[in-house]
Amino acid sequence: MHFVIKKNELLTGLQQIVRVIPSRTTKPILYGVKIDAEFNRVKMTAYDLEIGLEILIENNDQDQNEVLQVEEPGSTVLNAKFLLEIVRKLPQQLVRFDMKNRIATIQSGAATYTLNGLDSREFPLLPQVDDDEKLSMGCSLFLQAIQKTVYAVATIESRPTLTGVHFRLKEDTLTLTGTDSHRLSNLKISVDTLKEYSFEEAIMPSKTLQELLRILPASEEMVEITLADHQMLIRYDNIHFYSRLIEGTYPDISRIIPESFRTSIQIGTKRLIESIERAALLARENDNHVIRIHLRPSQTEITSTSQELGKVSEVIEPLSFEGEELLLACNARFLLESLRTIDTEDVSIQFTGPGSAFILKPIESDTNHLQLILPVRLNHA
Amino acid sequence: MHFVIKKNELLTGLQQIVRVIPSRTTKPILYGVKIDAEFNRVKMTAYDLEIGLEILIENNDQDQNEVLQVEEPGSTVLNAKFLLEIVRKLPQQLVRFDMKNRIATIQSGAATYTLNGLDSREFPLLPQVDDDEKLSMGCSLFLQAIQKTVYAVATIESRPTLTGVHFRLKEDTLTLTGTDSHRLSNLKISVDTLKEYSFEEAIMPSKTLQELLRILPASEEMVEITLADHQMLIRYDNIHFYSRLIEGTYPDISRIIPESFRTSIQIGTKRLIESIERAALLARENDNHVIRIHLRPSQTEITSTSQELGKVSEVIEPLSFEGEELLLACNARFLLESLRTIDTEDVSIQFTGPGSAFILKPIESDTNHLQLILPVRLNHA
Repeated sequence: MHFVIKKNELLTGLQQIVRVIPSRTTKPILYGVKIDAEFNRVKMTAYDLEIGLEILIENNDQDQNEVLQVEEPGSTVLNAKFLLEIVRKLPQQLVRFDMKNRIATIQSGAATYTLNGLDSREFPLLPQVDDDEKLSMGCSLFLQAIQKTVYAVATIESRPTLTGVHFRLKEDTLTLTGTDSHRLSNLKISVDTLKEYSFEEAIMPSKTLQELLRILPASEEMVEITLADHQMLIRYDNIHFYSRLIEGTYPDISRIIPESFRTSIQIGTKRLIESIERAALLARENDNHVIRIHLRPSQTEITSTSQELGKVSEVIEPLSFEGEELLLACNARFLLESLRTIDTEDVSIQFTGPGSAFILKPIESDTNHLQLILPVRLNHA
Repeated sequence: MHFVIKKNELLTGLQQIVRVIPSRTTKPILYGVKIDAEFNRVKMTAYDLEIGLEILIENNDQDQNEVLQVEEPGSTVLNAKFLLEIVRKLPQQLVRFDMKNRIATIQSGAATYTLNGLDSREFPLLPQVDDDEKLSMGCSLFLQAIQKTVYAVATIESRPTLTGVHFRLKEDTLTLTGTDSHRLSNLKISVDTLKEYSFEEAIMPSKTLQELLRILPASEEMVEITLADHQMLIRYDNIHFYSRLIEGTYPDISRIIPESFRTSIQIGTKRLIESIERAALLARENDNHVIRIHLRPSQTEITSTSQELGKVSEVIEPLSFEGEELLLACNARFLLESLRTIDTEDVSIQFTGPGSAFILKPIESDTNHLQLILPVRLNHA
């Protein structure tokens, strides 16, 4: 194997590759990045057996500035994190890779590294995903949809299906749902209907989605999503991202969304977030991050008490109030995480009572986004 | 106690105060900041019994813009880290403090915090330091001198005197020395001689100096240093910084500095640092971060080997070479930490042999700075 490559392209690729490298594993080869030099491209692969990432580096036809020149194809596996550190510190833009008898030589300027390679035949194969059927949408839209739902999924694994975000495609609407059974986020987006697309639903693991948020850029370029049995493949530019899917039946959430309300308010989103952040400082000290919300016609009062430290209270004037006075308690962290996904100036909150779920919706938004939070039971109401 | 204060001044002060707050202590009152509202100023104090910090907030006479208005003097102790978080999130610039029956009320805009205060009479008293005799110098110069010596002090406490930087004043020269017995840094600076200044020498704890590096700004304003028995006081602007001194006799270092050399080179500082950083990546894997330096008339070769990962080698052309060819091994971290204190373009390194200390000096510098590193013994030379 012999190839010459531009340092920046190699560096960018490796920075993404290392996100998938496990920090601990019983299979040392998984600490490695597989490097395949092919006729006119270099492919770097990392795979922790759950998430796989392939980065392709090739010359852009339109670009005179060659990033790569493969002289002899070949394959090796090198410690990925270590390789990243080396490449980061290389003195020159041109980097030469050579491989002979499993010893890789990396040379740039006056610096020469000789690294012990592993046998690339021992590197696990990525899952086969038949990509005949693809769903495609703007990358930025896809990432926003993930952001607005993934925060609500369960972190403990007693109900595995709840540890992922549920995707359902029906006609030209894609519905994403995340819930940990104490709160829920449900988002509908319109997608281009693709003829004969057989995909109906899938549960994407939270970890997979968190990685996608880190790896994909918020660009208007299209991302292609292919779902197969138990596996998915996401393609964006030179990135191929593989992940297993969560198996099992996702619960039917339609019946838990309340339809009539006792009290409704509209309130400034930023003003409410800041006020809850202040109350959360004291709420942190109690078990459930409990703050109290007292809804009165002309004022919404947020309070929080810590036996040890003291008390905080703050009054906000809502934009509108309908229904009856209500006092309820709620997990400040849940409320903040929901409010932070709302990108409209004002938010509508609809309450059904101190013991039943309340609903948050953006006001004047293009997105069909509904969030639900279950209050905390008050010991003495 | 009643006072009104500007949020920004309070915030800046508290951000410095919390640096001195211990992260764990058996005396809970030390988590607190003592707040003393006096006639026309507010004093905030933190003291972990080793390092004490006093921040004074008062109205600047020249400034029409009042930062403080004390209506009723008083004193309390509040949890410092918690108070900082509260102040950081306060909605308005004007902050009102009230205290009654040990309950402090902090009010800003629509937010009101009620905090449980502790009895300020239980807060430990800062050491009494008689500040008749002061040594003063530019703050930036003082900080640079600390930076260039403190990195070399011992971190393990088997010889307590080596865990601090030694300051000696003789005529109008202040000499700072840090050493852990494997390496040493020695810096001389000229100071204004002060008549009848009785201070001769003191050992300042490394932790104290690290805190000073964080708290004091790199400004040209003067810093005043007062040394008393076992205690020191450093004043800068509205900051009073107290620390204990290390007791004991500092070793005489004059006899360990070699005076004749076998090999001398002059080399580009940045180029050498980068090359050692590359070699250090592999050196990290072995016990002593060992890299090898091979000095030849026209080239300096840096190499490092890791059984597991591989090998790196790099050749640099020195600016000048005098004496005989030499191969020696050395701790890469020690070498990097020394080189990084050198702010001149080129560095002079003088070697006495593979088993004896070598000396690093800046070339064409105003500062009289000498660093010494002991090589690592080679198993097979």
